[in-house]
Amino acid sequence: MSGGNVLALCGGVGGAKLALGLSLVLPPEKLTVVVNTGDDFTHLGLRICPDIDTVTYTLAGLSNTETGWGRAGESWEFMENLRSLGGPAWFNLGDKDLATHVERTRRLMAGEALSAVTADFAGRLGIGPAVVPMSDDEVATVVETDGGDLAFQHYFVRDRCEPAVRGIRFEGAESAMPSPGFIAALRGALDAVVVCPSNPYLSVDPLLALPGVREALAHHAAPVIAVSPIVGGRAIKGPTAKLMGELGLAVTPATIVRHYGDMLDGFVLDSEDRDLADGLGASTLITNTVMKTIEDRTGLARAVLDFAARLRA
Amino acid sequence: MSGGNVLALCGGVGGAKLALGLSLVLPPEKLTVVVNTGDDFTHLGLRICPDIDTVTYTLAGLSNTETGWGRAGESWEFMENLRSLGGPAWFNLGDKDLATHVERTRRLMAGEALSAVTADFAGRLGIGPAVVPMSDDEVATVVETDGGDLAFQHYFVRDRCEPAVRGIRFEGAESAMPSPGFIAALRGALDAVVVCPSNPYLSVDPLLALPGVREALAHHAAPVIAVSPIVGGRAIKGPTAKLMGELGLAVTPATIVRHYGDMLDGFVLDSEDRDLADGLGASTLITNTVMKTIEDRTGLARAVLDFAARLRA
Repeated sequence: MSGGNVLALCGGVGGAKLALGLSLVLPPEKLTVVVNTGDDFTHLGLRICPDIDTVTYTLAGLSNTETGWGRAGESWEFMENLRSLGGPAWFNLGDKDLATHVERTRRLMAGEALSAVTADFAGRLGIGPAVVPMSDDEVATVVETDGGDLAFQHYFVRDRCEPAVRGIRFEGAESAMPSPGFIAALRGALDAVVVCPSNPYLSVDPLLALPGVREALAHHAAPVIAVSPIVGGRAIKGPTAKLMGELGLAVTPATIVRHYGDMLDGFVLDSEDRDLADGLGASTLITNTVMKTIEDRTGLARAVLDFAARLRA
Repeated sequence: MSGGNVLALCGGVGGAKLALGLSLVLPPEKLTVVVNTGDDFTHLGLRICPDIDTVTYTLAGLSNTETGWGRAGESWEFMENLRSLGGPAWFNLGDKDLATHVERTRRLMAGEALSAVTADFAGRLGIGPAVVPMSDDEVATVVETDGGDLAFQHYFVRDRCEPAVRGIRFEGAESAMPSPGFIAALRGALDAVVVCPSNPYLSVDPLLALPGVREALAHHAAPVIAVSPIVGGRAIKGPTAKLMGELGLAVTPATIVRHYGDMLDGFVLDSEDRDLADGLGASTLITNTVMKTIEDRTGLARAVLDFAARLRA
């Protein structure tokens, strides 16, 4: 490792685990984590950014590692009383977590950019690396299902990913700008771009749908390395496998490699899938990608950075 | 008591105690509590109605009787985390209480009237009597101080009533309409109108500033009875006495009687002030008005209703 800068592209839970690993093995000023905001939505008048909050809480050591979302030691007085008043209770908001949404909404309404609010919160929570929303403009992931279009959180949380998916689109992406921090990271010298093992279709594609991003990655001097979110024909977390099936795609690492296409320089395959390495069409690293412990996270982070160094050589 | 309808005019804590007493001695369908909304404000994007909430929580048996505001058994995870994110923390919002503000704001934004939301919340919390905001239009109590104009909650909570008051005005009152429930109560047959022992200048005057209300009360067939908020030259609760001094008014029950003027038919004086009954200029009931226990509340409520019956006779 030469000690250059690393850009991580990240969705929620799965991606945040690798982002945490990278944050533990890199000097803080060397890492920029750009986070999906296609899942963001306005609920109860509050602007909620699930992936930014998952990444922020994870890097700050505040996340609930059992549920995979929200904060550790969370309490639910607000939700209980919201229910008693007949309010919409399908989206759980913990008492601690609520402060993030209320204060973010207040600052956005006062005219601050999401980037500025996100950076300030991260700083106050003691996070060293830059946590950067993919855009300061609103982009909304819409899931096209047999039952009609669903806003992402309605699909993901309210309907528990049950509706069969026919397509996905990112409303507003074509006219949204990548955030200043994302653009700066893409324009700067990088040692590696790491596509974290988030859902490619729901969590990484929104970033790639922003004008110029896919092209910038495809032509970047730094190796772009994706970590497979598919292990043994299953998704480690979330609806990736179910969704791939519904979209008529084979649930294999090769499908992921083809999906990322020419922007990809390297692919990280789980040891369980070592038989699938041949013919993937990208340089491949075979290692453990299932992150159960902190050592799994830092181990994978180091392996990916070493892989990037070899690809640069 | 003939069993007719009773209209109570009420501010926050002090008034809510008598409203509770009335609710415990009257059949629920006979009591309408009209509540000051001049203290309402928008904070952190949330529409907060302190007096409505105090009355609602009090009548529902959910209020914190130690602090006089907020809910019993409240938790403060939200506030603690709001502080850690650098948010404005001068106005305390408990985790349970927050659900009221968030859900009310959501429904107001969706186009519902404050009256409808207030009635629905009261019903869900098992409250029998009608709890009615004085108006569905926004009226803002502004406190004119040596240091300039202050929004009510900035004066009352943030600055702890410390600035010297030079005047008080109710912005929007002249063009606001009394709420439909307030108008209906004023137009219907009543056995009594009870002005609860809230601050006359800050908590009752906003109701009286609404077009037609003072006139309707002055000409109403039912006796209008005010309970003195001043006992022994002091206010039972809050800044009433300090404020009266700053406005150049003698801190006596007679000042309160003169303030309510010709709309008043009867006045309830505390036993401690029995020497001040002569020359008050209104029929006077002398009784215990300091409400420490539930029996104090129901006792005062019964005494006021009996007094009204005598005034009607």
